Amino acid sequence: MVVVMSPEATEEQIARVTSRVEGTGGRAFVSRGVVRTIIGLVGDIESFHGLNLRSMPGVEAVHRISDPYKLVSRQHHPDRSTVHVGEPGAQVAIGPDTFTLIAGPCAVESAQQTLEAAEMARAAGARLLRGGAFKSRTSPYSFQGLGPQGLEILADIGRATGLPVVTEVVDARDVALVAEHAHMLQVGARNMANFGLLQAVGDAGRPVLLKRGMNSTVEEWLMAAEYVAQRGNLDIVLCERGIRTFEPATRNTLDISAVPVVQASSHLPVIVDPSHAGGRRDLVVPLSRAAIAVGADGLLVDVHPDPENALCDGPQALVGADLRELASAVRRLTPVVGRRA
Amino acid sequence: MVVVMSPEATEEQIARVTSRVEGTGGRAFVSRGVVRTIIGLVGDIESFHGLNLRSMPGVEAVHRISDPYKLVSRQHHPDRSTVHVGEPGAQVAIGPDTFTLIAGPCAVESAQQTLEAAEMARAAGARLLRGGAFKSRTSPYSFQGLGPQGLEILADIGRATGLPVVTEVVDARDVALVAEHAHMLQVGARNMANFGLLQAVGDAGRPVLLKRGMNSTVEEWLMAAEYVAQRGNLDIVLCERGIRTFEPATRNTLDISAVPVVQASSHLPVIVDPSHAGGRRDLVVPLSRAAIAVGADGLLVDVHPDPENALCDGPQALVGADLRELASAVRRLTPVVGRRA
Amino acid sequence: MVVVMSPEATEEQIARVTSRVEGTGGRAFVSRGVVRTIIGLVGDIESFHGLNLRSMPGVEAVHRISDPYKLVSRQHHPDRSTVHVGEPGAQVAIGPDTFTLIAGPCAVESAQQTLEAAEMARAAGARLLRGGAFKSRTSPYSFQGLGPQGLEILADIGRATGLPVVTEVVDARDVALVAEHAHMLQVGARNMANFGLLQAVGDAGRPVLLKRGMNSTVEEWLMAAEYVAQRGNLDIVLCERGIRTFEPATRNTLDISAVPVVQASSHLPVIVDPSHAGGRRDLVVPLSRAAIAVGADGLLVDVHPDPENALCDGPQALVGADLRELASAVRRLTPVVGRRA
Amino acid sequence: MVVVMSPEATEEQIARVTSRVEGTGGRAFVSRGVVRTIIGLVGDIESFHGLNLRSMPGVEAVHRISDPYKLVSRQHHPDRSTVHVGEPGAQVAIGPDTFTLIAGPCAVESAQQTLEAAEMARAAGARLLRGGAFKSRTSPYSFQGLGPQGLEILADIGRATGLPVVTEVVDARDVALVAEHAHMLQVGARNMANFGLLQAVGDAGRPVLLKRGMNSTVEEWLMAAEYVAQRGNLDIVLCERGIRTFEPATRNTLDISAVPVVQASSHLPVIVDPSHAGGRRDLVVPLSRAAIAVGADGLLVDVHPDPENALCDGPQALVGADLRELASAVRRLTPVVGRRA
Repeated sequence: MVVVMSPEATEEQIARVTSRVEGTGGRAFVSRGVVRTIIGLVGDIESFHGLNLRSMPGVEAVHRISDPYKLVSRQHHPDRSTVHVGEPGAQVAIGPDTFTLIAGPCAVESAQQTLEAAEMARAAGARLLRGGAFKSRTSPYSFQGLGPQGLEILADIGRATGLPVVTEVVDARDVALVAEHAHMLQVGARNMANFGLLQAVGDAGRPVLLKRGMNSTVEEWLMAAEYVAQRGNLDIVLCERGIRTFEPATRNTLDISAVPVVQASSHLPVIVDPSHAGGRRDLVVPLSRAAIAVGADGLLVDVHPDPENALCDGPQALVGADLRELASAVRRLTPVVGRRA
Repeated sequence: MVVVMSPEATEEQIARVTSRVEGTGGRAFVSRGVVRTIIGLVGDIESFHGLNLRSMPGVEAVHRISDPYKLVSRQHHPDRSTVHVGEPGAQVAIGPDTFTLIAGPCAVESAQQTLEAAEMARAAGARLLRGGAFKSRTSPYSFQGLGPQGLEILADIGRATGLPVVTEVVDARDVALVAEHAHMLQVGARNMANFGLLQAVGDAGRPVLLKRGMNSTVEEWLMAAEYVAQRGNLDIVLCERGIRTFEPATRNTLDISAVPVVQASSHLPVIVDPSHAGGRRDLVVPLSRAAIAVGADGLLVDVHPDPENALCDGPQALVGADLRELASAVRRLTPVVGRRA
Repeated sequence: MVVVMSPEATEEQIARVTSRVEGTGGRAFVSRGVVRTIIGLVGDIESFHGLNLRSMPGVEAVHRISDPYKLVSRQHHPDRSTVHVGEPGAQVAIGPDTFTLIAGPCAVESAQQTLEAAEMARAAGARLLRGGAFKSRTSPYSFQGLGPQGLEILADIGRATGLPVVTEVVDARDVALVAEHAHMLQVGARNMANFGLLQAVGDAGRPVLLKRGMNSTVEEWLMAAEYVAQRGNLDIVLCERGIRTFEPATRNTLDISAVPVVQASSHLPVIVDPSHAGGRRDLVVPLSRAAIAVGADGLLVDVHPDPENALCDGPQALVGADLRELASAVRRLTPVVGRRA
Repeated sequence: MVVVMSPEATEEQIARVTSRVEGTGGRAFVSRGVVRTIIGLVGDIESFHGLNLRSMPGVEAVHRISDPYKLVSRQHHPDRSTVHVGEPGAQVAIGPDTFTLIAGPCAVESAQQTLEAAEMARAAGARLLRGGAFKSRTSPYSFQGLGPQGLEILADIGRATGLPVVTEVVDARDVALVAEHAHMLQVGARNMANFGLLQAVGDAGRPVLLKRGMNSTVEEWLMAAEYVAQRGNLDIVLCERGIRTFEPATRNTLDISAVPVVQASSHLPVIVDPSHAGGRRDLVVPLSRAAIAVGADGLLVDVHPDPENALCDGPQALVGADLRELASAVRRLTPVVGRRA
């Protein structure tokens, strides 16, 4: 950590900072400039945080130098991790050597619709089935999901098609129930900073799919993963799904750079959701190609047998020719980037 | 609602849209332009939403015309509301005729610190005491609040100083406990889209202080209030606390325009939190003056008897001369905008 | 400046950084941490910039500590400046003791419209007349202003009403012509980073009104002012006019905090344009009240005798009762913040 | 265009809107809803713009339905265009069938550095040489380019290496001089809304490379292209180079979706600049792969023989192994997306 003193800081104020740092067992290196003094801190970062140095008189700014996350950082864990999802003997890998397609309906609406979507997904090469039973909707008047009944349907269809199942949990009170039915628990963008939920899924003994909040920096996203990891669960897959910007042509702006940025800082796998990022069917295939080429570890896409009658996010669901085009893109591009689909 | 057909839309596609609309009892007015056709819908908006018109072939865009919120809208409730907080006989009003200062420590750290902060707050003219027992922190390594013990302290100090108490609830599982100790339940910015929590506080029978999410539009914020209102609780006070932008000089960017924008659209009271918006002590008083002058119904500010040793957000807490300056600003500016402080 | 080395940096890489710094006559203080080394630089900042330290092997990040602007900084010029506009003997002051209303039509459309607007402005207490002869429009199909003829009209009406005139210059080739007709040259938000134009207005010998770019940080805005100041012209008034964010309810988001942030960093006066920030007539008066209360040195507002038929930005122009309400707000609020209107 | 009346609009106000529309030869279709009335306009859009309908009493909002650009729109020009750059007989194509690499130094510093960079670029497969003689820098204290001397160097090296040359013009007064030395004129992000400059390059008789402004929507970017096109010059190549968001990990956020969004709306070619978008050397190759895969028509990258001593943007310039990796990515990915590199 580096403490920047204001130009008017007195010697006494400088001395108070160094003595406070030394009181925690750290060391403080003072560099006196022409205009101002800077103090470099060496020692246990966590103990420095508690010092509240930014509130001390004469202090202008405190710059953090190290990453604030530890367990998910690549610094002490240089090899990238692989997360395994599903029953023993039939597990699907998500990691640096593979490219994993996850697909399914945005919302579970009925057994028939879910089955058709799962078969479409499998035919396109999906290795995991996604589907929402609990939906987090901006309007209380929108379809909120089938709830427990949706979980039953999803688990049944997963078994029938042989695809492990990933589904979102939106409330800490539902974690146990969802963990009974699903192989992987998704935390959605709106809940990325719901820290009680993060801790509950960290305790649930299932791999976690953690979407980036639509206004979260990469660092905040990795801190959210740290909340899960702190509970002893390092089976976390990150999912970039677009951030909020001023551009209205797309629902969100896919931050494609986040994939290599995360991979440089964290050992966790990272996948991309092009459906929610763009919110437009015509963008799903081009953005999927970009995600494969940039080096993502997988994709999460919406499919629906009848998008026109979907209860949720129909305009972005793939069907028919678009889905075949996606399958072809995965097949042709993954070898170029050195991965097995 | 207005449906815009693409230039290539066929007559059959236009007919499918109109017949789907008419199937719900609505009416569709077709205007054929040189380049494209637009269709104006008249009838029950909610039934149109379920139609998923944006997914139909030939449809380019669907423009919503009406506000999506109802209970909190000013359209059917033109008079601005007043929310009353506290025990019968000692209630504090927040609404169009008053200006209500809410102050206290960001986090309850001890009985002594909370008492000193409460006395500072009361001396500055605060009518409600704020203080956090459950904290929502970006890092799992930061101070997370004293929890239930913090609630006890806060309730005790509230009684001792005669100030009704407002405190944040961060988890739906804690709502009943918090409602036992507090007169008003705060939903923080990170939880504005935690819909399960919104419904739980809506059920709790206490007034709600709903902060704006740092990346939420005003419309999404009012939809969050609608989630609370739908549970039969209209005692909601909105709190603008800054949005996330590209500007690094302040922690967030206070969206001062949100105050008159909300007041034009909703009957709910709206207050401003200048402490969290700016994140800098030197900005709290100027931003408070701006909030009073723009027409806000109150302020929420951090105070701390010893900011240098605060466990949370010390750099923005008011103390001493700054707090006296705030009190003076409230006293001198509120009459100019026609309010009683 | 502080150089942060990566955890893998070698001793040789550290030595290369320190020797490069010392080669320019600076000094380098090395603090070796458990994980990484940081190097504090002391000496002439400008010479360090040329060193391109961020490109050296082993360097992870370079943190600038000092402000990059000099002439407009408050550091070496602690007293806030006053800028005087107009002919000798009839100058209008913009600075810390006064509150200066600048008003007029967005665009000069005709002598009659400009005269009526100027009289409205003067009646409301305006001390300077604004009006656009050259307009910077997003669409080439929009009204682009009357050009030289508009300048003549503006100058005539300014003389007739006794109000000094401020008008925008959008092209470096027009600076001399505009400077002949106007007392103050405005650089618009879209041209804030048009550095050739900034230098040209810096050379023109007239006070400058410099609007903030809609995506510019406060620091970049002050750097733009530094371009003008470097030409020997320190008669610069800054104008906050809203930044671009995700919020669609207003055309831009007025960054009211920018006023005290600028005043803390720079000695230059800073005013607010509530008309372009909100883009809505109903917001102009509340935002003006906020601007006065926060401590701005003045306001820039659009007025039009017949907004319904305005060729530019009619929806935000004040007229009639709104303008009288603005005049009343200026009159009642300025004494509370210790200023003469 | 669709006019939405407010719920309180009177019959007379509705009639005023329709009669104003009909006065320009247009037709107005009135749809009366339960709560409000909407009016669909059919006729000449441009004439409607002049009507200033949003300022009329009773009007709540005006929704534009058609694209505001014409010449660059794909609507009346469905085939995607190819732009040819260079001397007759040695022209380089940028368009839907090819993939064109443009590379060179951010700034021309000397003949030797430019020659080395050009040879590196050519060896990596570049077909055009980029290099800056006039630089647009945030700080007046940064290197501003060699100016006319830089143009001479660039033209010489272009001839020596057989690569047509593209360079930025930052001031309308320099257009003629730059057009004498360069085959293609670049308009930078900071000048995208410098409309005088756009018109000047539109008149210059050279192809134009138009970068997206860092806070510009795709629509505004296409409107800037329309300014060039209106002068009779349709040889415009668009360049996505990142937008400004809240994410600090990258200098800007590459909006990869902008490529397919532009291609759906406009016939103009669109390329990507991964160097300025990310501002980090380690991101240039992954982002280049993403750009090829998403369907971009080319790339613009910084190369430098000695990035550590570059006068401009050294931290992002490619050299050595990185450049060979880029060349390999172009070679292997372009056939998969059906293009010739």
